Amino acid sequence: MPTPTCIALPKVRFERGFLAERARLVRDVVIPYQWDALNDRVPGAERSGTVSNFQIAAGEKSGEFYGLWFQDSDLAKWLEAASYRLATHPDAALEAELDGIIATIAKAQQPDGYLDTFIQLKAPDQRWTRLYEWHELYIAGHFIEAGVAHFEATGKRTLLDVVCKLADMVDRKFGPGEGQRRGYPGHEEIELALVRLARATGERRYVRLAAFFINQRGTAPNYFDDEVQRLKLEKLPVYFYRGRWAYLQANKPVRDEPEPVGHSVRAMYLYTAMADLARELNDDSLRSACQTVWRNLCDYHTYVTGAIGSEWMGEQFSIRYDLPNDRAYAESCAGIGLVFFARRMLDLELKGEYADVMERTLFNNVLAGMALDGKTFFYVNPLEVRPEEARHRYDQHYVKTSRVPWFGCACCPPNIARTLTSLGAYTHSVQADGLAVHLYTDCALEADVAGAKVKLAVATDYPWDGRVKVTVNPAAPARFTLRLRLPGWCTQPAASLNGAAVDLAAHRCDGYLHLGREWRAGDVVELDFPMSVQRLRAHPHVSYDVGCVALQRGPLVFCVEQADNGEHLSLLRLPKTAELAARFDPALLGGCVVIEAPAERLQPATQELYSTAEPAVAPAQLKAVPYCLWNNRGEGEMRVWIRES
Amino acid sequence: MPTPTCIALPKVRFERGFLAERARLVRDVVIPYQWDALNDRVPGAERSGTVSNFQIAAGEKSGEFYGLWFQDSDLAKWLEAASYRLATHPDAALEAELDGIIATIAKAQQPDGYLDTFIQLKAPDQRWTRLYEWHELYIAGHFIEAGVAHFEATGKRTLLDVVCKLADMVDRKFGPGEGQRRGYPGHEEIELALVRLARATGERRYVRLAAFFINQRGTAPNYFDDEVQRLKLEKLPVYFYRGRWAYLQANKPVRDEPEPVGHSVRAMYLYTAMADLARELNDDSLRSACQTVWRNLCDYHTYVTGAIGSEWMGEQFSIRYDLPNDRAYAESCAGIGLVFFARRMLDLELKGEYADVMERTLFNNVLAGMALDGKTFFYVNPLEVRPEEARHRYDQHYVKTSRVPWFGCACCPPNIARTLTSLGAYTHSVQADGLAVHLYTDCALEADVAGAKVKLAVATDYPWDGRVKVTVNPAAPARFTLRLRLPGWCTQPAASLNGAAVDLAAHRCDGYLHLGREWRAGDVVELDFPMSVQRLRAHPHVSYDVGCVALQRGPLVFCVEQADNGEHLSLLRLPKTAELAARFDPALLGGCVVIEAPAERLQPATQELYSTAEPAVAPAQLKAVPYCLWNNRGEGEMRVWIRES
Repeated sequence: MPTPTCIALPKVRFERGFLAERARLVRDVVIPYQWDALNDRVPGAERSGTVSNFQIAAGEKSGEFYGLWFQDSDLAKWLEAASYRLATHPDAALEAELDGIIATIAKAQQPDGYLDTFIQLKAPDQRWTRLYEWHELYIAGHFIEAGVAHFEATGKRTLLDVVCKLADMVDRKFGPGEGQRRGYPGHEEIELALVRLARATGERRYVRLAAFFINQRGTAPNYFDDEVQRLKLEKLPVYFYRGRWAYLQANKPVRDEPEPVGHSVRAMYLYTAMADLARELNDDSLRSACQTVWRNLCDYHTYVTGAIGSEWMGEQFSIRYDLPNDRAYAESCAGIGLVFFARRMLDLELKGEYADVMERTLFNNVLAGMALDGKTFFYVNPLEVRPEEARHRYDQHYVKTSRVPWFGCACCPPNIARTLTSLGAYTHSVQADGLAVHLYTDCALEADVAGAKVKLAVATDYPWDGRVKVTVNPAAPARFTLRLRLPGWCTQPAASLNGAAVDLAAHRCDGYLHLGREWRAGDVVELDFPMSVQRLRAHPHVSYDVGCVALQRGPLVFCVEQADNGEHLSLLRLPKTAELAARFDPALLGGCVVIEAPAERLQPATQELYSTAEPAVAPAQLKAVPYCLWNNRGEGEMRVWIRES
Repeated sequence: MPTPTCIALPKVRFERGFLAERARLVRDVVIPYQWDALNDRVPGAERSGTVSNFQIAAGEKSGEFYGLWFQDSDLAKWLEAASYRLATHPDAALEAELDGIIATIAKAQQPDGYLDTFIQLKAPDQRWTRLYEWHELYIAGHFIEAGVAHFEATGKRTLLDVVCKLADMVDRKFGPGEGQRRGYPGHEEIELALVRLARATGERRYVRLAAFFINQRGTAPNYFDDEVQRLKLEKLPVYFYRGRWAYLQANKPVRDEPEPVGHSVRAMYLYTAMADLARELNDDSLRSACQTVWRNLCDYHTYVTGAIGSEWMGEQFSIRYDLPNDRAYAESCAGIGLVFFARRMLDLELKGEYADVMERTLFNNVLAGMALDGKTFFYVNPLEVRPEEARHRYDQHYVKTSRVPWFGCACCPPNIARTLTSLGAYTHSVQADGLAVHLYTDCALEADVAGAKVKLAVATDYPWDGRVKVTVNPAAPARFTLRLRLPGWCTQPAASLNGAAVDLAAHRCDGYLHLGREWRAGDVVELDFPMSVQRLRAHPHVSYDVGCVALQRGPLVFCVEQADNGEHLSLLRLPKTAELAARFDPALLGGCVVIEAPAERLQPATQELYSTAEPAVAPAQLKAVPYCLWNNRGEGEMRVWIRES
């Protein structure tokens, strides 16, 4: 059984820099704020009802279930995030809050282990009858993740026991045995959670259950066909319009579908679990399926911000190259799912392209989901917004022109929180013979590497500056390989070891610099990733981006905002020859790099709607800010893809 | 009371040329085909049920109502078209078919004059209770138009009597008097029909009823608010999302709304009636309201094809400049409504801009609605189609990638038919002191002009060629003014009278050449409207068209199709300096002008989705065909707005 490769969370500390600041915001603001939201204590935010539902199910109060059929999962994700916070920043008051709500959850759990307040309060006789629609297994998955996180953070088994009882109940109910259901979740999540539970408890049964769900998925006869027949359903919800069970990746066995299809969050959670299982079970066919779907995902379905899922209806993937900017769905949760998938692929094979995507999605799509004050959130992350149009056109009605405090369907905010409180799981990993650095940010960590205790200090102003100083401090001299990612966006990386230049050609492999040697305390690797401003162009089959460029500097994609460039951003043109200058503005948006360039702006030649007159061209100054920081200065137009002239 | 200005249909004959050919197609193919469709005799087409509904209501057969609540109107529009056909091309068999169905309609009509098979068969106790939604008055309007047309074509009063009885019933029910309803139609149409009925019968009561509907509309307290309160409706259908009663132009009194809003067909029928009434009643405030809404319609809401209504949800107007090409709704019926409105504005004031819009919309948007074989139709007329995307994206699900034989909601095909069978009502009009030619097409007509019998022969290959020869043949020498439109698209028109050049500057007024003189038999006016290929540019606030040009030659807007230019039309670029050559291709699409130019085509520099590499540019040949003829060679991409480089 392969060992988990994450470095335990408390062992990676982030104290300064861009990511650390966002993580601090989550700890100090988002987690308390979301706890208030889950308790319906945020004025002006949409009602959640989540905690209340558990209190009712636990018999602590009377009332009716409120919210969507997957409302429970909001609490589970928050519990996971809060546990990560406790792991890195212990806090007795928060721990007591968790103890309290976990006791309520335990009381709400039914004697046989079942736990789903929607079903318990609304349809107790209909357990497991609508797997295609209801989210019992999805919710179970999130509680399992929370239980593992809480256990690892606090050492307490209170929530872990609850989720083991729940997982055992699921394990009795589903499987290939006699009297067991052959079904699997309509919304994947429990599969990856079961792998985590197996790792935390050492109980391999959970891996087998996850493998059953994965292997059963999409096989003929289709479980969901049987289910809707039993339910005598005449028609499915409209979001199944495109390919029926493809919406939930169950149109064919998972190894037979090379293309990312259907609901994008579901797809990511599925692929994450497939990658987990490929590794746990050393399953080559699953590994190969993951590689194929990864290739197609990256080559045809990903926005330049790392966002995925371009179709609103069903929150799903569209056809290849169909990546509209103003109607992007690009859900924050789908981006988080892609970060999960990429991270698992890195465990399968250490290749820079996985870390490149993980970085791009985290730094752009995911971070954009949360405001600078940590109090408002985007669910949908378009790459172009014209607020007037988004407010009026029905086909953009899901595009919010400003972040909002909470959502009726509040999957994204706690998902962002749990990701940013567990950054250490993404930045580094250990291998049998060494230690890898995937994402650069200022931090310090301790790890057991090839039998040695190693401390690593990473000093950098990334993502604003590409210089990184890595100080290696083994307790005693130790031989291992330090693997340092060479970001894909960087065309001319340089490295030195204790002041002597490293021959990159000799030490570079699959996007990582491999430095195998006996490391001694105080060894210093200096990396330099020059951050020039790059003009990215989309494959011309992305019709929406033809004639446009996106500006990228380091891992960050930039955008132009109305606040800096006035309205009608589609009239702004960047000449091919214009020089792009980057500078750090400490006063802007909490301090960020801005890109400036001489540009031009089209102007109406006439008030006529159509005429033979060419528009006039006036000089203009273009100013771009990081996409992840957009919409922190009030509502206004925004555009990632800028016309080139 | 102003005289009607249309020239009676049989007095204008179209025998050759582009429009005549389309009109012939309607006579020979479309009308019989649609009669079969209304009788559910077209294999593979969606069921209509329309004739059957009347037979059931008439007691001629048993069965249940089938179709939408406005299904009756399909028959009414067909009756109107068939009547026009009888007017110009008498046909005993068709006339007998009409006599038969009119007898059925008369039998279906209730003793008090009420006629609506949906209500009669489905909800007989709910007459006039849901004006905001059901279409009783709309259907009545279409039957009234049909009754007038049938009477004018055949001299028979059979249908006219039915519709007078119906109109009288409505006139008793609605009005300002005691016991009368203050309501008005949710879908306008009866207002313009009542004006036609008044003209045909001389009964001014019908004009007063139309004026009541128009003046009452949108006043406070809002009739529809009262209605939905009476109905205890908790919420309105989603298509009211934008501005509640604005969807049906009843958010404020009609004189107070400067912007075209809501459902675009309803809006056009309303404005048409407003223009009618402004003239009938010499109402300056209505005239001014028409002029204002016309201005805003043309300056902010019209596609270059003359199409209107850019929003699918609710088939309605969007905000200013919001004219997406691939998600255009651009319903054929809305274009027809715009032709009606423009024609009425020409009656209010003879200005070329009204005829320009009428011509643009008729020749491009409306004609595109019907296939070259007259058997399939577009309801929605986008300006850009990528079939794969239109088939897969939900927000384009209403875009058909090929014309279809019939629709469940089949308003458009018979609307196209009635327009093309009554072309003479649009091409010319008479004034007290003269005769005007609005649209050029080969034709011959007779008219009473200022007391004289005048024959006019128009010889031209328009729209392929801009030379027009008008031969004037008064029965005896007669003094009157011949007003010949100078098309707005033509920058250098020329004219001669009996061989001598006409000084245009001296005789030009508001887009018309005014030739007042004593005309003698054989007088010849020759007009020359040179048709160079023009590159049209949209106002730059139409973000979708920035950087693109539309090609126009004469009244026709052109498009590029995959059949001529390969796929990925967004990669085609027309250099600013490229020479555009036009030639007539007798073998293509029934004979048409094509535009050709040396162009270029972007090619992927790499298979990567995003890279810093610039796409390669390869030479290409661009070939454009008239937009109204697109999609007659199988499914494929199409694009009106072409990137310019």
